[in-house]
Amino acid sequence: MLFRQLFDKTSSTYTYLIASGRGREAVIIDPVKEQLSAYLGLIEQLDLKLVRAIDTHTHADHVTALGDLRNQTSCITVMGEFTKADCVSEHVSEGDKIELDGIQLEAIYTPGHTDESFSFLWRQSHQQAVFTGDVLLIRGSGRTDFQGGDPRKSYDSIVNKLFQLDEDTLVYPAHDYKGMMCSSIFEEKYFNPRLAGKSEAEYAEIMNNLNLPDPKMMDVAVPANLACGQAN
Amino acid sequence: MLFRQLFDKTSSTYTYLIASGRGREAVIIDPVKEQLSAYLGLIEQLDLKLVRAIDTHTHADHVTALGDLRNQTSCITVMGEFTKADCVSEHVSEGDKIELDGIQLEAIYTPGHTDESFSFLWRQSHQQAVFTGDVLLIRGSGRTDFQGGDPRKSYDSIVNKLFQLDEDTLVYPAHDYKGMMCSSIFEEKYFNPRLAGKSEAEYAEIMNNLNLPDPKMMDVAVPANLACGQAN
Repeated sequence: MLFRQLFDKTSSTYTYLIASGRGREAVIIDPVKEQLSAYLGLIEQLDLKLVRAIDTHTHADHVTALGDLRNQTSCITVMGEFTKADCVSEHVSEGDKIELDGIQLEAIYTPGHTDESFSFLWRQSHQQAVFTGDVLLIRGSGRTDFQGGDPRKSYDSIVNKLFQLDEDTLVYPAHDYKGMMCSSIFEEKYFNPRLAGKSEAEYAEIMNNLNLPDPKMMDVAVPANLACGQAN
Repeated sequence: MLFRQLFDKTSSTYTYLIASGRGREAVIIDPVKEQLSAYLGLIEQLDLKLVRAIDTHTHADHVTALGDLRNQTSCITVMGEFTKADCVSEHVSEGDKIELDGIQLEAIYTPGHTDESFSFLWRQSHQQAVFTGDVLLIRGSGRTDFQGGDPRKSYDSIVNKLFQLDEDTLVYPAHDYKGMMCSSIFEEKYFNPRLAGKSEAEYAEIMNNLNLPDPKMMDVAVPANLACGQAN
C-alpha cells in the first residue's frame, strides 16, 4: 500500500496521495495549486497513474490543484453532488464508492463546515481511515460561519456519522495547525474539547462564538475553486 | 498498531510515537523540548506507558525532551553508544534490539551527519520502516560539516547500510522542510539528487560545498542536549 500525507505550509493543508503500490492507479485528496510540481514529481517517481483528484469541499483558504492536475494527467475531478463548482467531472452522493486499482473510497455526506462537504472512508484489511476535510479536525472542527456552514449540521455529521465509525478508524483532516498529523475516532469522540460530552446546543454555542476573522485568501480562493483553480 | 508522526514547526523536526495500541507500552523518537506538553497529553489520552525515549543523535537545531520525559514518565533514555551525553541511561550498539510490548526496534550505526548517529529499523508484519535521524533525509541528507560529520561516512551509512534494506522500507527522517512526511528506500536510492548514480567522491564533493550557515540554535542546543535538555 502506498499512502502519502503531504503538507502545504502556507495554508497548513494536508493532501493525501493513495495507491495500492508503485506502478498502480492513484487518487489524490485536497491538492493545493502551489504544490502541483511536487505532486507531479512524486507521481512520476512512484510510476503512478493519477485517475482521480478529489476535493472534500470548496476550500476558502487555498486554491485547489484539481484543474491543473486534470490538465496535466487527464485524471477525473471529483466533488460531492452539492458543489457549485461546475468544472468538476464526477459528483458523488452518500454511500457512493470510488473504485480504483485496489483502493475503495466511500463517500459520506458531512455538511456543517460547508453545505457541500463530503468525507471519504478508506477501508483496508488491517486498518481504516477517514478523510474528513474540514468538518472534523484534530481536537477541533471546521468553522461553521460561511459557505452554508451550520453548527447543528456539523454536530450531526460528526456525532451521528463520523463517530459511528469504528473507534480505531484513523482520522486524516485537511488541516492542522499544531503539528498533529492524524488522530482516531476514539480520540476525537473522547478528547475533542468541542465535542466530548457536549450536546448539540452546547456545540452550537461554542461554534457561534468563535469570532474568527475571514480567511485571508477567501475572496480569491472561493471563486478560483469554483473554477477548479483555473482562471475563468 | 499505533503510530504517530508529530511535527515541531519551529525546528521542522519530526518526532515519532509508537506503540502496539492504546493502553500499551510506547517509545518516542527524537522528541522536542517545546512539545513536551503535547506528548504528555497524547500519551495520557491514548493510555500509553512511555518506556523508552530515543534520540537518534545529538541534535544541533532543537533541544531534546529526553530529560523532561524521563522526569515526567520514568521512561528510559536511549542513545547510541558513542554519544557524549552522559545523562543517557541506555546505550545501543549496532544490531541491538530495543524490545517493548509488541514493538521491536533494531539499532543501525549510521555515522556521517554526526559521528554518533544511529538509525532505528522497525519491523512489522506488513511493512517495515526506518527512522533515519538526519543522516538520510527525503531527497536530501544531513549536513556533514560539524559534530564529527564526514561525507564519506555518510555515504557509507546510506549506501552500504540503509540502501541495503528492502526497497519498500518506509523512510522517516528527523526533519523535512518541504512538506514531505515520509519516503521509501526505493525513492531515495533512485531519486535522491545527492545520491542516485553518485559515487562516494561525487557525494563528498556535493556535501563539502553546501556552504550552509551554522544552525541558529547550535550554541544552545548542543550543550543542552548533552545534558538531555536539562539545565546543567
